[in-house]
Amino acid sequence: MSVQRRGRRMDAARNPVQQLPWIQPRLTLEPSRILSDDHIEAIHRQSMKVLEEIGMDILLPEAREILARAGARVEGERVRIGRDIIEEALKTPPAEFTFHARNPAHSLHIGGNWIVFAPVGGPPNCSDLDRGRRPGTLEDAGNFVKLSQFFNTIHTAGGASVDALDVHASIRHLHITRNKMRYSDKVPFVYATGRARLFDGLEIVRLARGISHEQMLREPSAYTVINTNSPLKLDAPMAMGIIEMARLNQICVVTPFTLLGAMAPVTVAGAIVLQNAEALAGLALSQLSNPGAPFVYGGFTSNVDMKSGAPAFGTPEYMKSCIIGGQMARRYKLPYRTSSTNAANSVDAQAAYETVFSLWGAIMGGGNFIQHSAGWMEGGLVASYEKFAVDIDLLQMVQEFLKPVVVDDDSMAFSAMEEVGPGGHFFGAKHTLQLYATAFYQPLISDWRSFPNWEAAGSPTAEKKANALWKQALAEYAEPYMDPAAAEAIDLFVARRIREGGEATDF
Amino acid sequence: MSVQRRGRRMDAARNPVQQLPWIQPRLTLEPSRILSDDHIEAIHRQSMKVLEEIGMDILLPEAREILARAGARVEGERVRIGRDIIEEALKTPPAEFTFHARNPAHSLHIGGNWIVFAPVGGPPNCSDLDRGRRPGTLEDAGNFVKLSQFFNTIHTAGGASVDALDVHASIRHLHITRNKMRYSDKVPFVYATGRARLFDGLEIVRLARGISHEQMLREPSAYTVINTNSPLKLDAPMAMGIIEMARLNQICVVTPFTLLGAMAPVTVAGAIVLQNAEALAGLALSQLSNPGAPFVYGGFTSNVDMKSGAPAFGTPEYMKSCIIGGQMARRYKLPYRTSSTNAANSVDAQAAYETVFSLWGAIMGGGNFIQHSAGWMEGGLVASYEKFAVDIDLLQMVQEFLKPVVVDDDSMAFSAMEEVGPGGHFFGAKHTLQLYATAFYQPLISDWRSFPNWEAAGSPTAEKKANALWKQALAEYAEPYMDPAAAEAIDLFVARRIREGGEATDF
Repeated sequence: MSVQRRGRRMDAARNPVQQLPWIQPRLTLEPSRILSDDHIEAIHRQSMKVLEEIGMDILLPEAREILARAGARVEGERVRIGRDIIEEALKTPPAEFTFHARNPAHSLHIGGNWIVFAPVGGPPNCSDLDRGRRPGTLEDAGNFVKLSQFFNTIHTAGGASVDALDVHASIRHLHITRNKMRYSDKVPFVYATGRARLFDGLEIVRLARGISHEQMLREPSAYTVINTNSPLKLDAPMAMGIIEMARLNQICVVTPFTLLGAMAPVTVAGAIVLQNAEALAGLALSQLSNPGAPFVYGGFTSNVDMKSGAPAFGTPEYMKSCIIGGQMARRYKLPYRTSSTNAANSVDAQAAYETVFSLWGAIMGGGNFIQHSAGWMEGGLVASYEKFAVDIDLLQMVQEFLKPVVVDDDSMAFSAMEEVGPGGHFFGAKHTLQLYATAFYQPLISDWRSFPNWEAAGSPTAEKKANALWKQALAEYAEPYMDPAAAEAIDLFVARRIREGGEATDF
Repeated sequence: MSVQRRGRRMDAARNPVQQLPWIQPRLTLEPSRILSDDHIEAIHRQSMKVLEEIGMDILLPEAREILARAGARVEGERVRIGRDIIEEALKTPPAEFTFHARNPAHSLHIGGNWIVFAPVGGPPNCSDLDRGRRPGTLEDAGNFVKLSQFFNTIHTAGGASVDALDVHASIRHLHITRNKMRYSDKVPFVYATGRARLFDGLEIVRLARGISHEQMLREPSAYTVINTNSPLKLDAPMAMGIIEMARLNQICVVTPFTLLGAMAPVTVAGAIVLQNAEALAGLALSQLSNPGAPFVYGGFTSNVDMKSGAPAFGTPEYMKSCIIGGQMARRYKLPYRTSSTNAANSVDAQAAYETVFSLWGAIMGGGNFIQHSAGWMEGGLVASYEKFAVDIDLLQMVQEFLKPVVVDDDSMAFSAMEEVGPGGHFFGAKHTLQLYATAFYQPLISDWRSFPNWEAAGSPTAEKKANALWKQALAEYAEPYMDPAAAEAIDLFVARRIREGGEATDF
C-alpha cells in the first residue's frame, strides 16, 4: 500500500484522475414524502381548476388547434383545458424508457428509480480562477462538453453548459451541436428555441448515431427542455418544441420556472399548483401530438430574495418544492426532472451548502433527471470550471452513498473482531487487508491531511484543488471515436446550414 | 418594504441579528431506511454474539460486579454479556423524556421525533480569521457558550466547545462548568472523565437550577457522553460515568467511536455490529445501575483515509452509518445521538459539503441529539468561530425545511393566480403583499446579491460574512438572569473545590 500510494500523493499530476467507473445510479431507498396523499390530491384538483377556469395563454395557433380538437375551450390566445383532457393524456406516456446515446454503453434509463446527472446548462457567462468571470465562448462551451464526457458521474453531454457568445445566434446552435456530438458520445440536448434549431439539432444527432430517420423515430436520442413562461403562458417556439419533439418521439422535459412571489404565488403550495398545471398542460400537448411520446415532468420552483427580487436556490423552500414535485410526478407515474442549484458568487462554503441542500432535495425527492448537477453558479448566470470539479466529488459521493450496504457474515466481520480483540486495532487485521483498497470512497477534492501538512502544502482550499482537477481532466480528455463518414456528414450538413443562414434572427 | 429594508442593508451593524425564534424542531417526515428489517435483525443478533462470545474488557471492578450479578461471565477484565441481560435492559429505559434546563423555556424533549442541536464539543484548539488557529483558552470556551446561548437554533449550552488549556486540568472543569451555567440557561453537559469532575459538575448544575437533591434525582438536568474505548473496551472513568449518571437519573449518551478500518472492522456492517454491541453493553450497565435511567444510544461510525489513517467525516460511509444507526436505535426505541461533522482545514466548500452531507445523514437518519452541530472542524481538532456562524445558517435552514407545508385554499392561491393571470407577475399581488414579509427563510450568511454588487462590496465569501456574524452575536449577547443567591452559591462551591484541588491529576 504505502510505497505505491505515497508515490501517487507526491506526484499526482503524472497519475490519471482516479474517478469512479461509469454506472447509472438508482435511488435505493424510499423517496421522501412531505405531503400526505390527501394534500397531493388537493394540489392535483386545484391544478385542474386552474387549467379549466383560468387557462393558459398559448401563443402558437397550431397548439391551440390541437387542444381545441381535444375539447379545450379557446378564446383568442387563452386556452382552458378540461380535466378529462389531462386524465386522457396521463394514460399514454411511458413511465420508463431508454434514452439512446451514440455510444450504446452510455444509453440511459429514464424513469423508475433511475438517476441521471446532467451538467450545468444555459449560463451566458463562465468563470475560472485563472481567467475570472467572462462571457462564454465556443471554446468554453466545448470545454464543458469535454468535462461532461470525461467524468463518469455525468451522464449527458449537456446542453450548452455555457453559451458561445462569440458566434452569431443564428448559427450558434450548429457549431455547438456539432462540437457536442464530436466531443462526447453521451446523450445530447437539442435547442427548441426555433424550428430550424430544433430540426438542425436532431439531424446532427441522427448523423452522429449513423441511423435512419425510421430508427430515430423509434429511439429517443435527444432531449430538450421547455420552460413555460410562467405564469400560465406558453410562447410559440416552446409550444412548437413540445409538439415536434413528441411527433418525432424525442424527449421533452417540460419545466415551469416558478419562483415564489415572482412568477408564482408566494406560497409553496400555490407555486406547486401552478407548476403542476403548466407541466400537465405541456403533457397534454405532447400526448395529443403523439400519444406515448417520451415526456419528463419538470419542476423548478424556488423562492426569491424578497429584499431584491433576486432568485434564491438551495433554500428550505427549494428543497420542499423539490420533494413535493417528486410526489406529484410519482402520482402521475412520470419521470421527474429537478436540479442541483445555488445562488453563490464564488466557490465558497455558500456555493457548497446551497448545492448539497438542493442536491439532497433532488435525490430524496426521487429526481430521475437532475439538471445543473455540475458547474452551476449564481442562480444560472455562470458556469464555473472549479464548481464543476467540486460537484463531481459531490456526485461521486451520492453515487457511493446509493450503493447498497452489504450485510452478510463476511461483512459483519465477527472473525475480524475475534482476531483483533478488545483494545486492539483493525489496521492490520486480515479482513481489513483484504478489503481496504476499495473499502471507502476516495475523494477527488476533499483534503484530509493534518492541518500542519495541509498548511505546509500552501493551505489549498477546495476551490484551488478543483482548479487543478478540471485542468487535469481536460488534459487527460480523449475525443471518443466517431465513424469518419458520420463526422464528414455532420460537417457537410453544418456547412450547408451555415450557408443557408441557420435560424433567421432579426439582428 | 423598501425604505426600511434598504436602511437595514446599508447599516447592518446597527441592527440586531435577525435569527429564527427558539423552537425545538421535529422530524416531520419519515426517517430514511437503507437496510431491511431482516438486515437490522441480523446486525442485532451478531452484536449479541460479539458480547456473548468475545465480550468486552471492562476496567472498573464495580462495573464487572454489577454485570456479574446479572449473570455475565467475568474472567479477569473480560466480561461476556448474555443476550438475556441485554433484552432485560431494553425493557426499562424511557423512549422519550424531558431534559430540564435552568430556564424552563429551554427544557428539551429527548426521543420520539424531537431534534436537539448541540454545538461542537471537545476540540483542544480554536480558530478564527483574525487570530488564526491556536490552543483554546477559558475565554474561548466562554465565547462558545455565549454563542450557543445567543443562537436560538442551538439547544444546549455545549460541553467545552473548546478546551481551556490555560487552566490546569485538575480544576478546569470547575471554571468551565461555572462559566457555562452563568453564561447560558440552556441544558448543560458535564464531564465524566473522573469522579470529582462528574460530581462537581452535577453540583454546579443543581445549584444553578436552585433545586434540591431530591428534585434533581427526579429531573434529568445534565448529560454526559461516554465514548467507549473501541473495540470492546470500557475504561474505569467511563464505566464510572455510566453507573453514576444512571444512579443519579441523569442523561448518559453512550457513543462508541468506531472508525472503519481503525477501531472497527473495515466494512460498514461490521463497524455497526461493533457500535451496537458496545452501546448496548453501556445500556445494560446503565439499566442495571438504575432501571429506567435516561439513556441515549450513540453512534459515531465513520471511515479513515486509508492513505494516512486520518479520520474522515461527512463521507458516504459516514452517512450510511448515520442512517443505519438510527434504524438500530428505533428498533430498540431509544433516543439516538449522532453528529454533524467534517474533516476540512478551512471554512471552504469542503467544510460545507462534508457538513451538509453528514447533517442530512443525521436528520434523515432520525437523529434526536445531534452533537457538533456548529463549529466543528478538522475532524474535531478545532472549534472554529466562523464555522459556528456558518452552521447556524445551515441549522436554521433545516429548521425551516422541517416546518410543515400548509396546503389549504389560501396557500394554494387560486385567487392570486386569477388576479395575476397568464403572463403577469406576483410581486404586487394581494396574496404576496399579505405574506411576503415572513414567506421565506432569510439567511444570515448566504449572499444573494448580483455579482457586480457583490464584487463592489469587496467580494465577501461566506467565511468573511461568518466572521462578521459571530462578532455581532458576541456583541449582542446578554447574560441570562440568575438568582444572585444561586450565583454566589456556585462561586463559593467552585472556590472551595479549587482549594481542595479539584480532580487530582498526576501532573
